[in-house]
Parts: sequence; structure tokens; C-alpha cells
Amino acid sequence: MINKKQLLTLSFLLLSFIIKAQNADSLMIRKIYNEVLTKSECYQNLAYLCSNIGGRLSGSPEAAKAVDWGKAVMEGLKLDRVELQPVTVPHWVRGNKEQAFIINTKTGAKLETQICALGGSVATPIDGIEAEVIEVMNFEELEKLGAEKIKGKIVFYNRPMEPTHIHTFNAYGKAVNQRWAGAMNASKYGALATVTRSMGLKIDKFPHTGSMSYIDSLPKIPAVAISTEGAEALSALIRSNKTARVFIKTNCQTLPDAQSYNVIGEFKGSEQPNEYILVGGHLDAWDNGSGAHDDGAGCVQSMEVIRIFKAIGYQPKHSIRVVLFMNEENGLRGGKEYARQAKLKKETHIAAIESDAGGFSPRGFSFEAPKWFMNSVQNYKPLLLPYDLYDFDGKGGGPDITPLVEQGIPTAELIPDSQRYFDYHHTADDTFDKVNKRELELGAAAMAALIYLIDNTEFH
Amino acid sequence: MINKKQLLTLSFLLLSFIIKAQNADSLMIRKIYNEVLTKSECYQNLAYLCSNIGGRLSGSPEAAKAVDWGKAVMEGLKLDRVELQPVTVPHWVRGNKEQAFIINTKTGAKLETQICALGGSVATPIDGIEAEVIEVMNFEELEKLGAEKIKGKIVFYNRPMEPTHIHTFNAYGKAVNQRWAGAMNASKYGALATVTRSMGLKIDKFPHTGSMSYIDSLPKIPAVAISTEGAEALSALIRSNKTARVFIKTNCQTLPDAQSYNVIGEFKGSEQPNEYILVGGHLDAWDNGSGAHDDGAGCVQSMEVIRIFKAIGYQPKHSIRVVLFMNEENGLRGGKEYARQAKLKKETHIAAIESDAGGFSPRGFSFEAPKWFMNSVQNYKPLLLPYDLYDFDGKGGGPDITPLVEQGIPTAELIPDSQRYFDYHHTADDTFDKVNKRELELGAAAMAALIYLIDNTEFH
Repeated sequence: MINKKQLLTLSFLLLSFIIKAQNADSLMIRKIYNEVLTKSECYQNLAYLCSNIGGRLSGSPEAAKAVDWGKAVMEGLKLDRVELQPVTVPHWVRGNKEQAFIINTKTGAKLETQICALGGSVATPIDGIEAEVIEVMNFEELEKLGAEKIKGKIVFYNRPMEPTHIHTFNAYGKAVNQRWAGAMNASKYGALATVTRSMGLKIDKFPHTGSMSYIDSLPKIPAVAISTEGAEALSALIRSNKTARVFIKTNCQTLPDAQSYNVIGEFKGSEQPNEYILVGGHLDAWDNGSGAHDDGAGCVQSMEVIRIFKAIGYQPKHSIRVVLFMNEENGLRGGKEYARQAKLKKETHIAAIESDAGGFSPRGFSFEAPKWFMNSVQNYKPLLLPYDLYDFDGKGGGPDITPLVEQGIPTAELIPDSQRYFDYHHTADDTFDKVNKRELELGAAAMAALIYLIDNTEFH
Repeated sequence: MINKKQLLTLSFLLLSFIIKAQNADSLMIRKIYNEVLTKSECYQNLAYLCSNIGGRLSGSPEAAKAVDWGKAVMEGLKLDRVELQPVTVPHWVRGNKEQAFIINTKTGAKLETQICALGGSVATPIDGIEAEVIEVMNFEELEKLGAEKIKGKIVFYNRPMEPTHIHTFNAYGKAVNQRWAGAMNASKYGALATVTRSMGLKIDKFPHTGSMSYIDSLPKIPAVAISTEGAEALSALIRSNKTARVFIKTNCQTLPDAQSYNVIGEFKGSEQPNEYILVGGHLDAWDNGSGAHDDGAGCVQSMEVIRIFKAIGYQPKHSIRVVLFMNEENGLRGGKEYARQAKLKKETHIAAIESDAGGFSPRGFSFEAPKWFMNSVQNYKPLLLPYDLYDFDGKGGGPDITPLVEQGIPTAELIPDSQRYFDYHHTADDTFDKVNKRELELGAAAMAALIYLIDNTEFH
């Protein structure tokens, strides 16, 4: 047995050791930030992706170019292994630009308005659809109206995102069922089509696309999003003209599934090369914009993590795997296939981290992770607070890595400030010039810092 | 003496009371945020100020218009008292647009570049100044070169803001002496003029103006800022052409001091009407932009605080005083005069809060305040964290209220995310479209919440 003095000495040594380790961690995190804030390549990479490739929906030639680009950037980073993981993806195309008019049946006035087809929607007949429009705020109202009032009409879902949520993703979560399930619900009652208010807080002319779904047993009706400005105008018209009509014409179609790929790069670990820490974003992006914030930002930040480690000479203990997922927007096939392969190959993942909430100033990370992992996250807090990372309370680890959760893998998502995200999300305005270089870099640094800490944690 | 049981009951009652009070506070703060995020007027007010008045440097007709506008907005809020507090201000005018060329003496090539006169600078002679240029990074280098190398030349200060600072204001603080004291230091050694790299982190074409100063005993030489892109180009030229020259022509002048005003509005307190909580920003803004972030944002946010209180029916115990200060940018005469009058009239200020760091997503407050005040601030933290306000560690209470510090008055400044601020600061690009409505509103709500808490604190 040790005596009191020995115990004291031991405690002192242990404490010194902990302080030294924390000090070394803090110096390494400082190095990470210095590197990214002075020599990052993520901003130029994003410029290339947005300007030379642009929107890149699954199955499109642009998505194929983006795969080649991701592979080339990773090869440029001299990774130990770069792989294209085959994924079969849906292939929906928008076709020619949509057209829409709001029609006042009292005056005969036709007002052109901005719409776009929702991803996965069927098209209208070639001459479009014109019908009386009926406004509802939710599915309960729809159900109350029933087939008698709905049949033969166009259903207009107009419940706004609630501005009182501090985090805009919460407002999105409470409104997005109108987009996702609007058509299938309206179809039950014989509606001809649906027009959904865009998922944005700002009142402007940009329609926001996004995915939607059908039920096989019900007729598939065309579904479009209308800009928030258009939604306000339509709602105002309906108040004064109960029989107001809407004309929409869309030209989209679903082609046969296509071959595509997740792009995977690996920086081999020195101690546990067969244990992985994953960092990623999704490579596909809606066709109407350039996919700058959603999710070009996440892709270039994930690759930047590796660039930083190499530049500062940090050799990770575990292998770091960068994954640029395909098809997050309309199918999540890339995320699902990655998880399926990981299970099949019995791969060990220490953790998976995604950036898919925009290239804005980071505030922290949200997690979907077991308690043993979250215990260690508590210890990271004082090391990350100097970098304005304080929020670790959110739930969820990012869409593409969610399929890994059922394998017990800890997942995390970068949480940037969310105020501006839905100004651009799924619109033609999600372009490179909306991204601030430093904000983008700080996101990459935050992920690198978290991965560094995870790489150096003995989990119990 | 009370027995154990009584003590327990008392403790329980006290605890219930504290919890109830915290609960009431938390509900009131929620009300504040709901109000501003759904019905704010600050964004429209800022639109008017920026679009219909624009840049408004002290002494200008636009500054006079801004005073009238501030008074009118406050009168519209039905305040108990609106006052124009006279302030005599400097009156510097830019005159016609500046001109500048970078001249390669080997090839004779002349490259036009973007500059602007610094506020307070004298003009060049009517034909401009052309001279050999000498690049320095700091005053130490300047001193080493001495009169022998400097005399008859144009000094080019080119020390960039350091991108490794996480908070950009720290980078600004370490670079801005080149702008403020560049001319007086170069004048010692016989320089003809100074060209200072713009105080911005982004590489672009916008020159950043800002205040500068002379020493009476030394010749006053013209001082300009060059855009960061121009600074990079000039520095590159000097590397290959040691005798490179610069031509600058500026047309500014200092007119006699002018009469102007701080705009003060008061919402009378119900319990301590003669004790004030001040909230403010500065009304003047550089002439080259619209003063949207600097500091139209702070003005409209401060007035919004009162609008929120009235709209939600909150009657403050202490009087809330909104102050739109004049002349922060080139003299701080408004802030100084306000403090002088407050002292003269022996007014009691509980606290003073300023917003002058842009209309970006708030992260917290910095303080220059006595310990007894900061002790209470600790108690506010859990109530503000749900609104993403976590940073209360910074130092400083805002420029216009700093003159109140010597009277022992606690001061605070709203701390928004700082990443984008110096992209716009003092440039032609500081315009309304760079402000996000929700970010602006969250800043107003943060100030209202802090003021509500201060109003309800018994300070010891």
C-alpha cells in the first residue's frame, strides 16, 4: 500500500501530466487555426466547384464531373488511398424552366410568379394545369376540407417557417412536411397539383426546391414550390378573390437510376490504421444553384481537414477518412451505401463528423452519440471555447452519417450560425459569393480540432 | 431563534421565490425575442437611413438629416422626452473622388489603383503628389530608415491585419496605428505623404477610410488608404522595381467646426425615473458608404429596444434612455459631451450599453464595469444562453460610452460575430443589402434582454 506522501506525489504527477497534455492539445489546436486562417485551400476549391461545375444533382453530368473533381483534389492531397465507391442513384431532371401565373378571376389579371418543381415530382401535362386554388396551413385543415372541397383544385400550402425559433433549422423542421408530404396528402382528396410556400424566412423572389415523395397507391400529382413573395401575393389574392386560379407548367421527369459514386480518401493512421474517423459532406447539390453552402462548403472543409494535418505535420493515430457522399438531396443513397459497406466489411469507426449546415461561422457541434463518447466531449469544451465553439447540446449527427448510428458509431455535425442558411438553401442564390472565406475556414478548423481531440482520446 | 424546521421552510420559500423570478425573467426574455422576430421595425428603419440619407459624416447635410430622422423615429415611438443635445463637431469633407497611380519606373507603366483620403487629412496640392515610394511594416522600420531614406518620398504602410486572430477586432487593434499615426510618424522624417494598406482582411478593391491625426509641431502631410488589392500590387511592384513611384491626388479639406446634436429619447421609469439605463449607437457614418453596419445598425437596434418594451407592455422601473451619438468616427465629441453633461447635471446612470460592432449574429457582450456589476452579470448567463449569448468575457463597453467609465458607470457593448465586419467597415460597401434582417433583430433583442435584466436587478 502506498502512504499519504506517495499518494500526494502521485496525484501531483498525474495532475502535471494532465496539464501538459491539455497544453499540448491547446498548442496543436492553435496550430490548426493558424494554418487554415493563413494558407487554406478550401475557399479556392469551393470557387472552382461552384463556378466550373455548379449545380450537380445525382445522375447529372455535373455530378459526374464533381466526382472526378473530388477525386482529383484528394489525389492532390497525396492521400494513402482514394476510392470511388459505386452508388446507384435516382436521376430526376428539371427540364425547361417552369412557368406559373396567379389569376384573378374577378379582373382577369394574370400575374407571373416564380416557382420551381420539387425534386422527384412528376411534370404537369404539356399545356400545364390551371385550376382554382385552395389555401391550407397544414394537413389537418386539408383533411377537414376533404375531397368535396379539394377535388379538381390546386392545393396551396402556405404555413410559413416560424421566425421565433432562434435556430432556423428548428423552424425548417416544423414546416418541411408541407414540401415532403404535401402532394401525397393532397392526392388523397383528388387535388390536381400542389404549390408549397418556399422553405425560407426571407420574403423574396427565389423559389426553394427540395425533395418530395409519393405513395404508390395514390395518383402522382405535380408539386412545385412558390417563392415566399409569390406565396404572400397568392394568399392576398385569395383573400379578396375566393375563386382565384393558378396556372403551373413544369417539365421535369424521372429517368432510370444512374451509376454514381461516393468519393473516399484515406490518410492512414500510425497506430490504429484499421480504425477510422470519418469526416465528410455531400457532393450532390440541387440543379438550380451552385450548391455553395449546401454542401460544397462541407466537401471543401472536409478535404481541408486533411490538408491542415499534412501541412502542420500532424500524423493521426487512427486513419482519417474523407467521404464526399453522393445523393444526400434526393435519396441519401450514398450515406446508406457507405453504411452498408462499412457493416459488410466489419470496419471500425471511432466517430463520423459531417458538415452540412452551411459555411457560416461555427458555434459548436451537435451529436448523436453514446454516453461514453459524450463524456469525453465534455473534456474538449475548454479547449474549443477560445475558438467560439460553445454549443455542444444539439441533437443529430448530419444526414449522410445517420445510417451509421445503428452500428453504434458516434456521429457529430458542425453547427454554424444558422441565421442566413435558409436565405440560400435550395435556391438559385446558393452561390459562391454568399460564402465568407474566414467563416468557411473556421468551420474546417473546428472539424480538424474535434478530429484531433478524438484521435487522441482513450475512450472507455 | 428559528428552529431547523422553520429554517428548512424558509429556505424552501426562498428557493421557490428565486425559481419563480428566474421563470418570470425567462418568460419575459422569450416575449422580447418573439416580438422582435415577428414585428420589428429596425430593418425598415435601417433601410430608410441607408437609402434615403446614406453616408453622414459629422457636419454634413446628411448628418443633419440623420439627426432629424432619429428625432422623428423617436417621436413616433411616443417617448416621454426627445431632446437634441448640442455638440460642436469637426467638419471634414472629402471633395472630389481621389486619384492614384502605381508607376513602374522600369517600364513606364502606370496602373490606376483605388485609394481614399483618411478622415482629417490635408489634401495634396492641386496637381497631386508623385514620388518614389518606400514600404514599411511598422514604425520601428520607419525609424531605422530615418530621414536619409524617407525624405521626399511617399511612405507605404503595408502591415496586414493578422488573419490568425479569431476575433477580427483584435487584428484591427494591432494594425490600426498605421492609419491613425502613420502621417505624424512619417512627417518626422520628411515624407511627402503616406499610403496605408486598408484595414480589412479580405483582398478586394475597396479602400477603407477612417480617422487619423497630426501633431501640431510637424508638417501636415496627406494621408490615404489604398485597397488591399492595391497594396498587394504595389508591394509586388516594389519587390521588382526598387524605385517604383506613386501618384496620389486628394481634394479633402477641414472646414470650421459645425453645430450638430446627439439625439436623446427617454422612456420614463415607474420606480426610479431619475436613474437611467442608456442604450445607444452612433448616428454619424463615413461619407463613402451608407453606414449600414457602422453604425446605422446600432442606432436602429437601440430604438427597437424601446419599441419592443412598449409593444410587449413592459414598463421599466428605471428610465431607459436611447442616445444616438454624433461624431464617433472623427472626434467622439458626442460621447464626450454626453458624459460632460451627465456629470454636470449629476445624473445617475445604472448602466450604459452600446451597439457599434455591426448588425451580425450576436454572441454576447463585453464589459467595462465594476466588480459589483459583473457579479450580477454572472446570474444573467443561464437566461441568455438559450439565445446563443455565451460570451461575456471581452473587455470594453463601446466607444461613445467610454467617457462615462470614469464616472464609475458600468458599460457594455454588444458583441456580434466579427468575421464579416471588416469586409465592409469604412468602405463604400457598407450598405443596407449587407445586413441580414434576423441578425439585426437578434442584436436588438439581446440588448433589450440585457436591459430588462439590469432593470430588475438589485445591485449591491
